[in-house]
Amino acid sequence: MANEKKLVQKITSRDEDFAEWYTDVVKEAKLCDYSSVKGCLNYLPNGYAIWENIQKNLDKRFKETGVENVYLPVIIPESLLQREKDHIEGFAPEVAWVTKGGGEDLEEKFCIRPTSETLFCDHWQKVVKSYRDLPLVWNQWNSVFRWEKTTRPFLRSREFLWQEGHTLHATAEEAEERTKMMFKVYQDFVQNDLSIPLISGKKTESEKFAGAVDTYTIEALMHDGKALQSGTSHFFGNSFPDSFDIKYLDKENKLHSAYETSWGMSTRIIGAIIMVHGDDSGLVLPPRIAPTQTMIIPIAQHKEGVLEKAHELLNRLTNSNIRVKIDESDKTPGYKFSQQEMLGIPTRIEIGPKDIENNQAVVVRRDNGEKITVKLDELEEKLPEILETIQKNMFQKAKKFLDEHIYEAKDLTEMKEIAKSKIGFIKANWCGNPECEDNIKAETDGFGSRCMPEEEQKNVTGKCVYCGKDAKYKVYWGKAY
Amino acid sequence: MANEKKLVQKITSRDEDFAEWYTDVVKEAKLCDYSSVKGCLNYLPNGYAIWENIQKNLDKRFKETGVENVYLPVIIPESLLQREKDHIEGFAPEVAWVTKGGGEDLEEKFCIRPTSETLFCDHWQKVVKSYRDLPLVWNQWNSVFRWEKTTRPFLRSREFLWQEGHTLHATAEEAEERTKMMFKVYQDFVQNDLSIPLISGKKTESEKFAGAVDTYTIEALMHDGKALQSGTSHFFGNSFPDSFDIKYLDKENKLHSAYETSWGMSTRIIGAIIMVHGDDSGLVLPPRIAPTQTMIIPIAQHKEGVLEKAHELLNRLTNSNIRVKIDESDKTPGYKFSQQEMLGIPTRIEIGPKDIENNQAVVVRRDNGEKITVKLDELEEKLPEILETIQKNMFQKAKKFLDEHIYEAKDLTEMKEIAKSKIGFIKANWCGNPECEDNIKAETDGFGSRCMPEEEQKNVTGKCVYCGKDAKYKVYWGKAY
Repeated sequence: MANEKKLVQKITSRDEDFAEWYTDVVKEAKLCDYSSVKGCLNYLPNGYAIWENIQKNLDKRFKETGVENVYLPVIIPESLLQREKDHIEGFAPEVAWVTKGGGEDLEEKFCIRPTSETLFCDHWQKVVKSYRDLPLVWNQWNSVFRWEKTTRPFLRSREFLWQEGHTLHATAEEAEERTKMMFKVYQDFVQNDLSIPLISGKKTESEKFAGAVDTYTIEALMHDGKALQSGTSHFFGNSFPDSFDIKYLDKENKLHSAYETSWGMSTRIIGAIIMVHGDDSGLVLPPRIAPTQTMIIPIAQHKEGVLEKAHELLNRLTNSNIRVKIDESDKTPGYKFSQQEMLGIPTRIEIGPKDIENNQAVVVRRDNGEKITVKLDELEEKLPEILETIQKNMFQKAKKFLDEHIYEAKDLTEMKEIAKSKIGFIKANWCGNPECEDNIKAETDGFGSRCMPEEEQKNVTGKCVYCGKDAKYKVYWGKAY
Repeated sequence: MANEKKLVQKITSRDEDFAEWYTDVVKEAKLCDYSSVKGCLNYLPNGYAIWENIQKNLDKRFKETGVENVYLPVIIPESLLQREKDHIEGFAPEVAWVTKGGGEDLEEKFCIRPTSETLFCDHWQKVVKSYRDLPLVWNQWNSVFRWEKTTRPFLRSREFLWQEGHTLHATAEEAEERTKMMFKVYQDFVQNDLSIPLISGKKTESEKFAGAVDTYTIEALMHDGKALQSGTSHFFGNSFPDSFDIKYLDKENKLHSAYETSWGMSTRIIGAIIMVHGDDSGLVLPPRIAPTQTMIIPIAQHKEGVLEKAHELLNRLTNSNIRVKIDESDKTPGYKFSQQEMLGIPTRIEIGPKDIENNQAVVVRRDNGEKITVKLDELEEKLPEILETIQKNMFQKAKKFLDEHIYEAKDLTEMKEIAKSKIGFIKANWCGNPECEDNIKAETDGFGSRCMPEEEQKNVTGKCVYCGKDAKYKVYWGKAY
């Protein structure tokens, strides 16, 4: 049948054209598509369900550290956006402006929020009076809007979904501690729940967030060797709070500056999941955030007892809190396998008349194709073990790929040579001068500074690969999305 | 101490000035406040946490009926909004328009979505080809924007949070069934999880949603006798799908119209919770959606062993999946009681040296003040029972209030008399003529038609209270928020 052409035949091979492969997977797995609103996505059920699981797991981690959720307005008055100088310079060129409302021209225009630091500070200025009011550790799950020129599904779109955490503290130390704590939460979440290994550390001065003192980033390596910034945590010092005149009285009744952080992770991370784990058969989802963890596919389902047994398994696994579905459509088993693989469902359970006779089923792993025969009585026990093995194996596989794609360059010649012939990260020394940083990127065809992992900054010796002066930092350089 | 003035003294009495009482409770319980964006709210931690529990419970009910979540863009091109005539007439006057983006004037303006029927239809037009693509049963949790002139916390604001479900079906029957199914989900949720009794039924022609064939509504009665529309489910027939040229091929390869529904519930419902259950001590939250279900308040907490025992209880109850907190601040117990009451936390657990000696604690119910002595060993068993009793008692209490405030009028004189002297709903016959409906509202100082419960529409006899012609409908009339 024409419409039963294997889904895998509809996607470009990953190594042939990575960009095309990515677009094909997003389309065939029905994760999202472009809406009639230029540059804006429709997040479709298969894609949004991944986001819901990300939200659930990450939100739980946030709350364990004392985060409270809030929701602040979707639009920001121009005057508010202008309160912090670096911030307005960073965002003003790329916002959407509301100039009419309720049939009338507005006296002051509003932008659709590109990020909400200004709204949080504006509220805090009104409510924070004393040290008793601190700290405030807030977060919101929302969408933001930036007038991007070029867009790609999940990676860059005018509107995207994210969480933005904003916190206010009595001391710089406490704010710095929170910045690093959330940086750590992102690392743990991405490595453990998404099976994505990371290179993590501070951004350089030129790469940090508009208005921040320090920006910490987690960087993941995609299969094509490009880095994807996957989450950031910012320490603002007191610049924002001072711009908004947020002051508090300490125990001795003295007026003090307050200190701020913000931190965010967006639907970009779904792009990372696709590009780190996906293969030529489609998506491969980590079991912990897969909307469906196993698909039961009955074989010869018209034969007596097959569908009954399949439904019995469905009920049993549902009761064991496994996210399970059954495909009892009139498609062929081959097509169903292909569809389950395209959707990245971590396992499928094949069950036919012979299996039932032998009181067993065949569990097929999506990550490596391994077939595991499991006794029907032991499914509830074995399947969670298999899912956990997949979760760990996916991390190990990606970690091996990452480790194999980190190169070290001692001088610019070596660095240019690697940049030309390899994909991945290049570790190289840097003196701290932004001009050297710019020149390195220009002369390596786009290897920009990604981050400076803390554990590699102790006792940096050697020379800056560009200017040859004493190096201060060990930087990971890479091409980036 | 000045700041230990009982919180209850800060709020106006409910029967003295209901509107003032409402505003005071919202403020003192820190549920939300007005942002610097005119007419828009900041949803603060205490208010947003209620919304999160509403989302969690309602979303679970949705998914049990097969709903899938999605997310569509925050802005809508003007041309798209204009595709359905009634719809644009209903919404155009009250939208906010984006006219500039990325530093340039836009060729076409966009409105911030006031509701998303047009975006769903636009997407469906592109993807629906065959009967195999139907039904589509989608929902999104988002915010919408309407340029309201007057606003009140939760009840009416320019931006508000809600869910909007949109579904597409092959037949009118199936779409009608879905409309009624979601209407039923709202009824069950509000009555069981929020302990709010309802009057539910169809809206009249004049009161239904712009573009709908039928609108079903759930109406709750506030303590001041006004009704609050708390959720609506709309059957659109094929008007929207036809306007957007959505057609599908049936099994015989014939082209067909598709049929649509939409249904929504918003943060307005938090206003209903406050105004149905609240009292002169503040909020009273139904246990199933209360962010904190019990507050442990140690008595004489400086005495040896008190805080240790209180924390032991905290851990035990947390492990029993009860949402529990401890107030070990340096405030007096009286102040802590007052704060727990203001926040509407359904129970508090008082535990002091004497209680510990007697191996007991005192559980105090927020809904009626009852004090229950519970053996410490039995807390995990008894507390959930007490919470469930509170949940049921709150419903019974509100149901009694509702039942006592439904009046029946046989003619206009009687109706005007009731409208002048009583608060609540008036049941009265209506002929179906919109002019009579308008006149009734005008001559009763605002008793508009709220809804027509299905079970009361069988064998309607008697005359229309306004024109005296044969009645077709039994209508509930009331003043409304």
